[in-house]
Amino acid sequence: MDFSSKLLENAVNEVSRLPGIGKRTALRLVLHLLKQPIENTNYLTEALQLLRANVKTCEKCHNISDTPICDICSNSKRNPSIVCVVEDIRDVMAIESTAQYRGLYHVLGGKISPIEGIGPQNLEIESLVNKVKIGEIKELIFALSSTMEGDTTNFYIYKQIEEFGIDISTISRGISVGDELEYADEVTLGRSIVNRIPFEQSLRN
Amino acid sequence: MDFSSKLLENAVNEVSRLPGIGKRTALRLVLHLLKQPIENTNYLTEALQLLRANVKTCEKCHNISDTPICDICSNSKRNPSIVCVVEDIRDVMAIESTAQYRGLYHVLGGKISPIEGIGPQNLEIESLVNKVKIGEIKELIFALSSTMEGDTTNFYIYKQIEEFGIDISTISRGISVGDELEYADEVTLGRSIVNRIPFEQSLRN
Repeated sequence: MDFSSKLLENAVNEVSRLPGIGKRTALRLVLHLLKQPIENTNYLTEALQLLRANVKTCEKCHNISDTPICDICSNSKRNPSIVCVVEDIRDVMAIESTAQYRGLYHVLGGKISPIEGIGPQNLEIESLVNKVKIGEIKELIFALSSTMEGDTTNFYIYKQIEEFGIDISTISRGISVGDELEYADEVTLGRSIVNRIPFEQSLRN
Repeated sequence: MDFSSKLLENAVNEVSRLPGIGKRTALRLVLHLLKQPIENTNYLTEALQLLRANVKTCEKCHNISDTPICDICSNSKRNPSIVCVVEDIRDVMAIESTAQYRGLYHVLGGKISPIEGIGPQNLEIESLVNKVKIGEIKELIFALSSTMEGDTTNFYIYKQIEEFGIDISTISRGISVGDELEYADEVTLGRSIVNRIPFEQSLRN
């Protein structure tokens, strides 16, 4: 791309560093900002800078939070002995939106991924193992995505906490509610047969 | 979406104001910035603010430029009597990348669109008509997109300059080079037949 303005080129280059944003999209976004009042650009850049400079993570669950202890961890109505292990804040938001879970979370901050250079020491695994060690947790629910990295991370954590004898479960995998069997992939369908549940239990859901 | 952090929510809201960026994408982009060093966020916000605060448009063609007269308008090797009318800088970049055009440009800054509240007074039409009036332009080439808005804008400008008797043309529409006829849409194929060119002329392309 041959830009007529160095300022424009710099802005497009910076925007296109964001994941999934190519040069053309970046140009479109930047030109949009140029057509809007200057305040809109200021609001955007200020919001990003304020967030980046002041972002905190909850001391207990490591979720993004404006306070030292997040709203979920400080909610006395929630059960602190059940902890759901997730990758990041998006998973917390997804599970919260189901309104089906009343325990706490533990946000790892990623999954073990040798390809991306993410090892156990880059994640909040030690703090999780400590929580189990001091007897704070009675049940741990793994809710990482079911990829190679997710399974590896689950197993790594499992090996470090199995000796403490707490309940360890993982969210169930199966056919989505409302999905047709014929369109389901074989792995998911296979798992849903192997991990079938008593019919009477399904009635209670 | 239920955010655990007001700072995060603000940043996501501002990013999702950009065209084509929904809340989920905005959250993904913002979380990406949080995982990167703080400098990356600073580079991004600085580039946007510098651009927005200092952006200039060329006094002659109204294209985005860091100098009062842009590189194209100040290039003495280009023919100033041929002017190509385009919507914005992206069209200039697209035509420049063909290396087939040695005239100048006139950037309107948009198209007439009553639905979006864009009238002729919001575009650089008066300055274009003035250029024609003072005899600066011998040939005008319309290169707006062939939509209702583009055609309206072309016609509006045409009615104001037809009395001056300069050459007025529009870029040709037709089947893309390398495209199969059977997959072309009827309107384009129809136009390409109506606007057929002498075979000998096509040999010279």
